Amino acid sequence: MIEYTPPLGRLVEELKRLPGIGRKSAQRIAFFLLRSPPEIAGALAAAIVEARQSIVSCPVCHNLSSQVPCEICRDPRRETDKLCVVEEPFHIQAIERTAQYHGQYHVLGGRLSPIGGIGPDELAIAPLIARIETGTFQEVILATSPTTEGMATAHYLTEILNRYTIKITRIALGLPVGADLDYADQVTVAKAMEGRTEVH
Amino acid sequence: MIEYTPPLGRLVEELKRLPGIGRKSAQRIAFFLLRSPPEIAGALAAAIVEARQSIVSCPVCHNLSSQVPCEICRDPRRETDKLCVVEEPFHIQAIERTAQYHGQYHVLGGRLSPIGGIGPDELAIAPLIARIETGTFQEVILATSPTTEGMATAHYLTEILNRYTIKITRIALGLPVGADLDYADQVTVAKAMEGRTEVH
Repeated sequence: MIEYTPPLGRLVEELKRLPGIGRKSAQRIAFFLLRSPPEIAGALAAAIVEARQSIVSCPVCHNLSSQVPCEICRDPRRETDKLCVVEEPFHIQAIERTAQYHGQYHVLGGRLSPIGGIGPDELAIAPLIARIETGTFQEVILATSPTTEGMATAHYLTEILNRYTIKITRIALGLPVGADLDYADQVTVAKAMEGRTEVH
Repeated sequence: MIEYTPPLGRLVEELKRLPGIGRKSAQRIAFFLLRSPPEIAGALAAAIVEARQSIVSCPVCHNLSSQVPCEICRDPRRETDKLCVVEEPFHIQAIERTAQYHGQYHVLGGRLSPIGGIGPDELAIAPLIARIETGTFQEVILATSPTTEGMATAHYLTEILNRYTIKITRIALGLPVGADLDYADQVTVAKAMEGRTEVH
């Protein structure tokens, strides 16, 4: 049995380490890179190296950035009295895309997961408390995901932050826009009922 | 709205060009590369550059290789009287993994697709005929995929190769090992019946 020619084998092996990429996808991507114009492969390799070299964690909010502090923390136009707590840096983009929120962020770096061995000390919770103790924030918005672990994290943070005289809010649970009530799961419908708002 | 910090945005954009990678996967891979040890990102970037620089198409069989001719074409232990025709270079690995075939290969570089604008001239069919005209091969095994286009390609090649006094075979169609007859599609079951072999 003949294996891939070594440089191709190495490329497939390296691609297989990426999340969500199995043997078949790695193969497909490798052959795509070999068949497309050399600029495509070159630009990808350069982007990987550049990102790895220039991106750091913002010491204020723990977002990923090439600037210290990050683009959001240094932006003077943003509101300074609201703090939105998210699990991961890319959740910031999910919220920014809505163009509805103009406050500050705090990235936890994950969510509590007793099974995965992630406790409060593994997350950026101590720095969050330190930020809240500065007294600049009027409201903390808990925007962790509505998964079991994300909700447990929000619950844990609520317990801790209750000590401070600060408004604590949680993003709304309900039906996603465009959803059919008939296809929504029970828990979501229950949450949508529970969180109903007056329309008059 | 704040976008990704530029080096991260570029990495996500480059990853999105890869086949099967959408915005969410690109994001996930980018954050993985930034969070994992720097060696992972470095090794991937290096593997891309190395593969792109050192891998060429074998002038004999059109397989991808870092050697000319490729590892299979230059291997003196392989049988020289059998030629297996496949669509893509990675189909060679699929056959090699079985360790059942020890002959030569010929990569077409695709399959006939009138809709996709792929005619006989876009595939390595002329070089295939040239190889057959050397008279070294006793048997040509058509191992194109059992898709409509792959079967049309095999049919087209059969028509052309019938001119030569050479044995032409086609890989067997039938039930995959481990399959349940009840779940197999009609065409596959029909092909499995048609291709039945005596067992006694």
